[in-house]
Amino acid sequence: MKNIIIASTSTIHGSGPLEYLLDELTVFFKDTSEILFIPYARPGGISHDEYTSNVNKAFSQIGKVAKGIHEFEDPKTAIANAKAIFTGGGNTFVLVNQLYKNGLLESIKQAVNSGTSYLGTSAGSNICGLTVNTTNDMPIVYPPSFKTFGFVPFNINPHYLDPDPTSTHKGETRETRIKEFHAFNTQPVVGIREGSWLAVNGDSIILKGSLSARIFEHGKSPYEVEPGIELNTLK
Amino acid sequence: MKNIIIASTSTIHGSGPLEYLLDELTVFFKDTSEILFIPYARPGGISHDEYTSNVNKAFSQIGKVAKGIHEFEDPKTAIANAKAIFTGGGNTFVLVNQLYKNGLLESIKQAVNSGTSYLGTSAGSNICGLTVNTTNDMPIVYPPSFKTFGFVPFNINPHYLDPDPTSTHKGETRETRIKEFHAFNTQPVVGIREGSWLAVNGDSIILKGSLSARIFEHGKSPYEVEPGIELNTLK
Repeated sequence: MKNIIIASTSTIHGSGPLEYLLDELTVFFKDTSEILFIPYARPGGISHDEYTSNVNKAFSQIGKVAKGIHEFEDPKTAIANAKAIFTGGGNTFVLVNQLYKNGLLESIKQAVNSGTSYLGTSAGSNICGLTVNTTNDMPIVYPPSFKTFGFVPFNINPHYLDPDPTSTHKGETRETRIKEFHAFNTQPVVGIREGSWLAVNGDSIILKGSLSARIFEHGKSPYEVEPGIELNTLK
Repeated sequence: MKNIIIASTSTIHGSGPLEYLLDELTVFFKDTSEILFIPYARPGGISHDEYTSNVNKAFSQIGKVAKGIHEFEDPKTAIANAKAIFTGGGNTFVLVNQLYKNGLLESIKQAVNSGTSYLGTSAGSNICGLTVNTTNDMPIVYPPSFKTFGFVPFNINPHYLDPDPTSTHKGETRETRIKEFHAFNTQPVVGIREGSWLAVNGDSIILKGSLSARIFEHGKSPYEVEPGIELNTLK
């Protein structure tokens, strides 16, 4: 049975890394003290070691240890043996490229569909959707494909941001970008604001956290859903 | 001899489409009244016809006519016969995908390197650089390659935006994104603010317009260049 948290961000304003999620994670990771960490998204270009060390500072507050997948000789065996996986944020293209390069997409997908707990934040959440076509990240590397896990039957837009009515900037708003996405694609997009996440349990998908999410369905006007609402029928 | 304008944006705040550039374009397009327009980037997902019609509203103010490349039976011949080409903004991935699909990258590159005037705004400017790895756009389609014209020996970041010191949002700033780009790539990136452009004449590349540009070189701290400065040695 799938057991997944798809979080908009690792960090909210004025709070430490993962701090707003730690209570939730204590319950989510209750069956294991060791979490397999996938540091491939390398925020700011930092190394896999440095990223893993940063995550351990947060995890140590709830008695958990993150072990970086790059520390294992055979990453596929590491995935198969893991009780829980955490993929952190950074650059989605770098993340996806490395997952394809190491041939791990299918291994993780199979493990998570078989019940291995999975936490994603930001880039690690993007890849829970059908494709990375709705990432906010700069395409700094060219991955072999934009297809991702598809743990949910729609796309994710993490760090969802409302248009700023005072802005004088002419770059596209997030809503315009997703509207452009729907000129070429039909799957729904869930815009998750910083501080909220999707909790997936088997067939149930529930919005949790403090903020509503914005749903974009092809051919419909965007609309809001409140925390506590099930998104099981969205596809 | 190359004759190119690489503009950050088509439109600046409080002004009509191309309005801030019309004086410059009167001179730039002085040898022709008809401009071949490439509407492939489809801003907001609008059609090629609608986009061409919008551009003609602006061009009519300086006595010019834009003819959409989609109106020609043979786009390659249209490119070879054109005295001037304008590629408008929208989604860079959609633009690049369509250029590859129609096999036009090489034709345009050859024409412009042989002296056909080229105006790019936003997405149409991104493709003047070496690759689209530094676009701000959402990757709503998967193009066969990220390689582009390379009219200048560096990458472009149009709509360059300074970090907002009052922001509480945790998504990456533009500067962080370009820093991440340089963890995987070595070419310089020129961040052009809305209202400025690069004028390329043969081997000369000069920043023009009202605002300074921000230059990101691999392994160096970013720095500003003022309008009027030559960027010929940047590579």
